[in-house]
Amino acid sequence: MSNILYFYISVRMVSSLCPGEYAAPSVETSVPGPKSKKLLAELSQIQQSGSVQLFADYNKSLGNYLVDVDGNVLLDVYTQISSMPLGYNHPDMLKALECDENKRAVVNRPALGVFPGADWPIKLRSTLMSVAPKGMGSLTTMMCGSCSNENAYKNMFMKYQRDKRGGTSDYTDLEKESCMINMPPGAPKLSILSFKGSFHGRTLGVLSTTHSKYVHKLDVPAFDWPIARFPVYKYPLHENLRENEQEDERCLAEDLYLDSIGSTLFSQVEELIEKWEKKGNPVAGIVVEPIQSEGGDNHASPYFFQKLQKIAKKYNAGYLIDEVQTGGGPTGKMWCHEHFDLETSPDIVTFSKKMQTGGYYLKSEFLPDIPYRVFNTWMGDPTKIVLLEAILKVIKRENLLSVVEKSGDVLMSGIRELEAEFPALINSTRGRGTFITFDAADNKLREDIVNRLLTKGVQSGGCGVVGIRMRPALIFQPHHAHMFIDRLRQVLAETK
Amino acid sequence: MSNILYFYISVRMVSSLCPGEYAAPSVETSVPGPKSKKLLAELSQIQQSGSVQLFADYNKSLGNYLVDVDGNVLLDVYTQISSMPLGYNHPDMLKALECDENKRAVVNRPALGVFPGADWPIKLRSTLMSVAPKGMGSLTTMMCGSCSNENAYKNMFMKYQRDKRGGTSDYTDLEKESCMINMPPGAPKLSILSFKGSFHGRTLGVLSTTHSKYVHKLDVPAFDWPIARFPVYKYPLHENLRENEQEDERCLAEDLYLDSIGSTLFSQVEELIEKWEKKGNPVAGIVVEPIQSEGGDNHASPYFFQKLQKIAKKYNAGYLIDEVQTGGGPTGKMWCHEHFDLETSPDIVTFSKKMQTGGYYLKSEFLPDIPYRVFNTWMGDPTKIVLLEAILKVIKRENLLSVVEKSGDVLMSGIRELEAEFPALINSTRGRGTFITFDAADNKLREDIVNRLLTKGVQSGGCGVVGIRMRPALIFQPHHAHMFIDRLRQVLAETK
Repeated sequence: MSNILYFYISVRMVSSLCPGEYAAPSVETSVPGPKSKKLLAELSQIQQSGSVQLFADYNKSLGNYLVDVDGNVLLDVYTQISSMPLGYNHPDMLKALECDENKRAVVNRPALGVFPGADWPIKLRSTLMSVAPKGMGSLTTMMCGSCSNENAYKNMFMKYQRDKRGGTSDYTDLEKESCMINMPPGAPKLSILSFKGSFHGRTLGVLSTTHSKYVHKLDVPAFDWPIARFPVYKYPLHENLRENEQEDERCLAEDLYLDSIGSTLFSQVEELIEKWEKKGNPVAGIVVEPIQSEGGDNHASPYFFQKLQKIAKKYNAGYLIDEVQTGGGPTGKMWCHEHFDLETSPDIVTFSKKMQTGGYYLKSEFLPDIPYRVFNTWMGDPTKIVLLEAILKVIKRENLLSVVEKSGDVLMSGIRELEAEFPALINSTRGRGTFITFDAADNKLREDIVNRLLTKGVQSGGCGVVGIRMRPALIFQPHHAHMFIDRLRQVLAETK
Repeated sequence: MSNILYFYISVRMVSSLCPGEYAAPSVETSVPGPKSKKLLAELSQIQQSGSVQLFADYNKSLGNYLVDVDGNVLLDVYTQISSMPLGYNHPDMLKALECDENKRAVVNRPALGVFPGADWPIKLRSTLMSVAPKGMGSLTTMMCGSCSNENAYKNMFMKYQRDKRGGTSDYTDLEKESCMINMPPGAPKLSILSFKGSFHGRTLGVLSTTHSKYVHKLDVPAFDWPIARFPVYKYPLHENLRENEQEDERCLAEDLYLDSIGSTLFSQVEELIEKWEKKGNPVAGIVVEPIQSEGGDNHASPYFFQKLQKIAKKYNAGYLIDEVQTGGGPTGKMWCHEHFDLETSPDIVTFSKKMQTGGYYLKSEFLPDIPYRVFNTWMGDPTKIVLLEAILKVIKRENLLSVVEKSGDVLMSGIRELEAEFPALINSTRGRGTFITFDAADNKLREDIVNRLLTKGVQSGGCGVVGIRMRPALIFQPHHAHMFIDRLRQVLAETK
């Protein structure tokens, strides 16, 4: 059966989870096309716009299809850097805005920490708390991933210092006065341990724990905080079990190596913690992604995360799992760390992107002791809860987590077949659910594949140096996955 | 004429800028009332809710009146910490959400740095750029005040380092590698000079420039950045011209003093810059509020800001004016620094709150040299531009900046009369437009006045230690101002 016929049938035979969705991508111009280029010239007059790929027509985009201003219809497996759980213009989300009460939620944005609306407690219960990781009963809402991590670090610092005070809030005058001029003991030397290759945001605190690309960090002052090695696995995981277990041990317990610029860094997590303790800059928290996303979709085993939790506990450091990119369903579970069989829940789990609102779950002992310590004007945005409410209803009604699993299976087996067919071009397919990445043989080929996928109507995205990442919506169905595999096969077959 | 009769007449005689607005406040229960208390108990189960004052009914709130869940109708001169330019449920804002295109803007939130919508350039032109401070042609959109300042600092760091490189983007390998592990030269020692009493946000970078209250800063590590004295004026300004001029000079050029915990700090801005240069942590930027808001509505003269700009230029430090609280009209001009007659525009002006969206204007030489250096997933939110568009139209149509001036005059002269009437209770009334504060004799009295104003149906807010700040909406009219003065007079008259 020819590919075209196959897709014709598959598209017609299955119903889309987004009614009226386009049947297939179609590309009329180069991407970006002439209209996008014209708009880019306009925008560049007022902004640094070098990152803009195209201008979208959000009136015509629908479901899994992003339509650009030149009329190109693109199958979107990148979905606004992984932030569109139901794709574009989902009818349930639009319908939520028909309701007068919800419109007023958009218009009357309160300072949630001072004047929340009557329905705020019940809305938090029915949305964010209804999908809270097991064992996590407390919640802070924020606006984006960076500020969620920034504030979660503050919770860990405050908890660490409170424990040092024996659980009291008896601040000394010296503490109160010294913190006002950025000096210890009030503004203490405390650190957060992070991992090579990690990405936790771009504001100055979290940027000190981001280590994915120099372009994010160059020229910006940073805190002297410890950085541990993250496992570098061989893929496929099931064929390299023994070797990858050894890699876990190397990262957690054994190895020490010379850093690229010559200074000695202990990769071993415990030694780093002890070293920073000795230099008077103790580790108050450990932050880690369940899958290092921006850094190249680097995976680590459940064992690695379990062991890390034990180490955090041993040193009374907070254990923060950053689910900004992995949270909200793309791995087949609501939270990726639920794949890890942790002994207890993490201390803090941050989220944003697919959840619409930023924020974090936390164990109640990580809540600030007194008010206004973790606070800002808005403390989140009810508009985003209105949207999240509609999204969670659709996830449940359509059982989207199982759709993710099915589509993930199609993607994973399809890309693995292509790996076998084109071993010189792509390798190391890995992932959970539809949160999947494969590597190109080198950076140049990666860029080339992403660009040529675009000419065939597929919007994907890179990660790390050689990775191509899938970040489709949760309504990305098996027939979309087949379509993606077909386009990727065409691209690889045409590679010279 | 009795007060009641007077207000009856004044309310009936003038038309409200928000049709259907309540005629006067009315208080049925204690505030917070029983329903608020019940909801607070619920919310406290999942959050640190000690800062919550009441639960609002945003369906019933209208114009300048905040209605709480217990049915109390409060004249709101605090407006969600100064973030509601048109008050509650303004018909033009609600109408903006009737439009299908705007609904889709709420639902299809793009990664604006990569896939902006077709109308993004023209929307930025017709909204944010249409009210840009003179001479500021570039723009970055963000989500809140903290992240606007965080990213603006990055722009200043990058500009400072680029100048050191002779304007090129020739990064060395050592720079690229060292920044990845938070070390110089890639992550250089650079500082931002800020002022005592300032507030620029709560994430870790900007928190190092915030010095208003210890509760914001305690237990959180900070950068070693210089902190200069901010003028401490005598009020009223027009009666203390000579003395306040001397205070400017002390802050900018002369004084040195012992800090409260004993370490010597040079208050003099130039000396601080030279001192930090000498210790290898040069000042890349100066950040200052046009009126120190959270810190107590501390004013400084146009001369102070002019001189500060000259000093910044002399040392090639960026000059950032933080208009997060002052921007958007409450001082009678769109931007408070427009009162200062600066020689040229500031290098960067940050905003949020009344502008709905965070972000900053900047001179084009402060734009990053290459893409992705100042970037994040969302880079702002088109929903907020939809709302801002409606707001700016109303500001223009109703000439709200002149309403601000008129109401500000009523407030200022009314509170000054009360100062004269109750000199032992309140003093130091100061402000621009309706952005007005007066001081209570001490902190206890301040809390007492704020609480008793509430029992009379007025929601105000404190700032600094003894300040009571007016942050009404731009639709706060003279008759509202008279109502406020009346309630304040009652409170002061009843003070024992």
